[in-house]
Amino acid sequence: MNISIIRRILGYVLILEAAMLLLPCIVALVYGESDATAFVVVSVLCLVIGAITGLKKPKSDMFYLKEGCVATGLSWIVLSLFGCLPFYITGTIPNFIDALFETVSGFTTTGASILSDVESLPRCMLFWRSFTHWIGGMGILVFLLAIVPLSGGTGSNINLMKAESPGPSVGKLRPKMRTTAGYLYAIYMLITVLEVVMLLCGKMPFFDAITTAMGTAGTGGFGIKNDSIGGYSPYIQWVVTGFMIAFGVNFNVYFLLIFGEFKKALSIEEIRWYFFTILSAAGILFASTYDHAYHNASEALRHSAFQTASIITTTGFSTADFDTWHGLSKTVLVLLMFVGACAGSTGGGIKVSRFVVAGKGVVREIKSYVHPKSVTKIKLDKKPLDSSVTRNTYIYLITFMFVFVVSMLLVAIEGKDLLTNFTAVAATINNIGPGLELVGPTKNFGFFTPFTKVVLIFDMLAGRLELFPMLLILNPAIWRDTAKQGRRKITKVNNKINK
Amino acid sequence: MNISIIRRILGYVLILEAAMLLLPCIVALVYGESDATAFVVVSVLCLVIGAITGLKKPKSDMFYLKEGCVATGLSWIVLSLFGCLPFYITGTIPNFIDALFETVSGFTTTGASILSDVESLPRCMLFWRSFTHWIGGMGILVFLLAIVPLSGGTGSNINLMKAESPGPSVGKLRPKMRTTAGYLYAIYMLITVLEVVMLLCGKMPFFDAITTAMGTAGTGGFGIKNDSIGGYSPYIQWVVTGFMIAFGVNFNVYFLLIFGEFKKALSIEEIRWYFFTILSAAGILFASTYDHAYHNASEALRHSAFQTASIITTTGFSTADFDTWHGLSKTVLVLLMFVGACAGSTGGGIKVSRFVVAGKGVVREIKSYVHPKSVTKIKLDKKPLDSSVTRNTYIYLITFMFVFVVSMLLVAIEGKDLLTNFTAVAATINNIGPGLELVGPTKNFGFFTPFTKVVLIFDMLAGRLELFPMLLILNPAIWRDTAKQGRRKITKVNNKINK
Repeated sequence: MNISIIRRILGYVLILEAAMLLLPCIVALVYGESDATAFVVVSVLCLVIGAITGLKKPKSDMFYLKEGCVATGLSWIVLSLFGCLPFYITGTIPNFIDALFETVSGFTTTGASILSDVESLPRCMLFWRSFTHWIGGMGILVFLLAIVPLSGGTGSNINLMKAESPGPSVGKLRPKMRTTAGYLYAIYMLITVLEVVMLLCGKMPFFDAITTAMGTAGTGGFGIKNDSIGGYSPYIQWVVTGFMIAFGVNFNVYFLLIFGEFKKALSIEEIRWYFFTILSAAGILFASTYDHAYHNASEALRHSAFQTASIITTTGFSTADFDTWHGLSKTVLVLLMFVGACAGSTGGGIKVSRFVVAGKGVVREIKSYVHPKSVTKIKLDKKPLDSSVTRNTYIYLITFMFVFVVSMLLVAIEGKDLLTNFTAVAATINNIGPGLELVGPTKNFGFFTPFTKVVLIFDMLAGRLELFPMLLILNPAIWRDTAKQGRRKITKVNNKINK
Repeated sequence: MNISIIRRILGYVLILEAAMLLLPCIVALVYGESDATAFVVVSVLCLVIGAITGLKKPKSDMFYLKEGCVATGLSWIVLSLFGCLPFYITGTIPNFIDALFETVSGFTTTGASILSDVESLPRCMLFWRSFTHWIGGMGILVFLLAIVPLSGGTGSNINLMKAESPGPSVGKLRPKMRTTAGYLYAIYMLITVLEVVMLLCGKMPFFDAITTAMGTAGTGGFGIKNDSIGGYSPYIQWVVTGFMIAFGVNFNVYFLLIFGEFKKALSIEEIRWYFFTILSAAGILFASTYDHAYHNASEALRHSAFQTASIITTTGFSTADFDTWHGLSKTVLVLLMFVGACAGSTGGGIKVSRFVVAGKGVVREIKSYVHPKSVTKIKLDKKPLDSSVTRNTYIYLITFMFVFVVSMLLVAIEGKDLLTNFTAVAATINNIGPGLELVGPTKNFGFFTPFTKVVLIFDMLAGRLELFPMLLILNPAIWRDTAKQGRRKITKVNNKINK
């Protein structure tokens, strides 16, 4: 493995984080909060370490998918390890694992919190939490690609993008990956600003509007109020609903719309299934909450639409305690957790397109019993899919299942009830935030043991990076190879000395 | 589709059922119970209808997998529809859907009951319930194959066997399918008799020994006591534990052992994983129940071993109310529900071998990131697996997931809690019996609405027949084809008349 280029990417990531940490610092200064120095200290630390590791030119620019995955996995770990320091050193979150949990939850856009009273946090900390959502949603490496010309070989851009972007396929929207990354961030920024404006129109305070918009954009879910979005006006709740859905859409759609390719944009099958799922789920939720949880139809509709949008896009904001809802509603919401948003959006979960492909695979299988001789290819967007795509979809679902089961067993060790364990893993691996029972929308993840928290931290990262980068890092073969390389180098040096 | 041959098979099945119904009739006469006539009436009914439909020679002996699946699915439905009549017409179970549920639960070896007090049932009814387990475990069509030379073409035997036998692969143990079926039933009978003898040695009453052995053999789980096996001696509980595990083993192993191929028998990977899973699960259960639920180590060990064996083999007997156990134990048991027994055993669930293949697929995928150029084949029992086998395993798991999710949504409509819905579907589709919460081991399925019961009846059949036969029956294309054939025939007749 080409360690030198991975080292360089990690360095760049740290330098970028140094810059990012200045934003909450500014917030602290504006609101006259005393925590500004903490951010400066961590920022300088990131800058120094980043400069040392990042500025040395790599020996080789060989860069394959393996390097892309490992670089991505390690980048996110490093990003979180340094990103949690402001919480830790200021004592805002006095326990390191808790601070790490909160930060990973932020960057991975999960939104699961260990805090029981977020309103007591200084504004700079609230800003930093929400900002991690925003950058994590579209991806730190995609951001890096957009602004820095990575000296890595031709493979580096596409392989980093592949490893970090949510969803099975990376649309090469423009011939150059760098331009694509730039466009993506531009669209992302634009829609975020639009949401801020619309929230301000609803008389939301400026700070609330910025943080809420960042939480929506990244489909994160950290709120700055203890009751999440529940205390805001119906108008604001509807605006957030709309933008959650918008950020769960495949960004290729916006790209195509900007370039006037309306027909192509509307022909994307995943989008139709996405909206179909939202409408059906919200319909079921409405039918089962109206006259039970809510006696007012417009209220039932608002909460149903909000919760559907929040869970399918894996945002995790809440306006109501859905843990008290009817069994059917809870079943629908738990299933939506796994569906997730569209590929190429900022949302988590398994992704709508994977279910579309898998569902078509099952239908084809049943058809093959009726007409065994006809070999049909699965079609998506009217084009036949390569068999490797269906195969990858199957293997992804099965790998997901294995990671899920192992996580559930590990979490179960501390002996909480089954539904808590199940939804805690589901809510973290799908990057949602709240689950049910002890981790329901009005509760938090603080009571778990450090061991369980580490398992859930892994799940959040694995879910955000689509499993394989994190599994690869756990694979000893990767490190054995690298160690072998190292030994070979030492032998070479020794040989030279002996000569 | 060749309807005429399917009709003939259904006829044979009914004639066989007519014969089977005489057994509980004998039991009624022996114990002087008044329900003997009900069994005679239903038996005669089966015989008459069976003779009418079965004795007419089919027009064509064309028989493909499609015919095998549809014949199997319909056979099991017909078998259950007639098999439930004794319960219904005697008023033992006054509701038809309930009677059908109980009978399907029997034949599919699920063991989920709608009865709250089984001890009040006459012995002939208890015998019939347990006997449905025995015949359903190895399969009614396999039995038919063993005794009747089906006039269908060469494809009929293997395709029926494929559709009815649990597990992904049908071992063609002998060159002739008929001989294989005969051997399988001979081994099955032998081990059942062995269990009866060992239970009698533990001073179990004769009737109890027979019914318990049949319930164990089919991995069914209907008990004749309200507390299942809980009231019997530890010796009896250990004997049942041992035999549950034995009936969960791939029958190929016994076959190979009989023919002296010890080495080959021991090299089967699935068996090793099966025992490894049992040992690990029982170990975890022991660790989490000892000193909590039980203060006596031997008691904790007995219940842990019993419950592990009962759930992994999908039998569903119980000696303890595991719904009150520690969260970790319950998590392990719920996961075991899905694992299931070995392929080619009488057990249900997804089957150990499918997880072995899928797990190897995931490991290969991770390895492919490390060494992208090396194309490796998955090996099972040291032989490389054909890629179609891995593909079929993936598609089976994914189809299972879809059927599971749809069932859960349908069951959720009546609004019970999530864990009840989840484990009710898990316990029926995996042919276990008891679940957790409202369907826990001390409860029953009687409280569900008729709609939910129908969904769970479908799940039991789908689980026992490995999904596709039941999905095929639901597929309108199958019936459209058949209707077209019918219309063509009518046109031909009309044309003839016109000439």
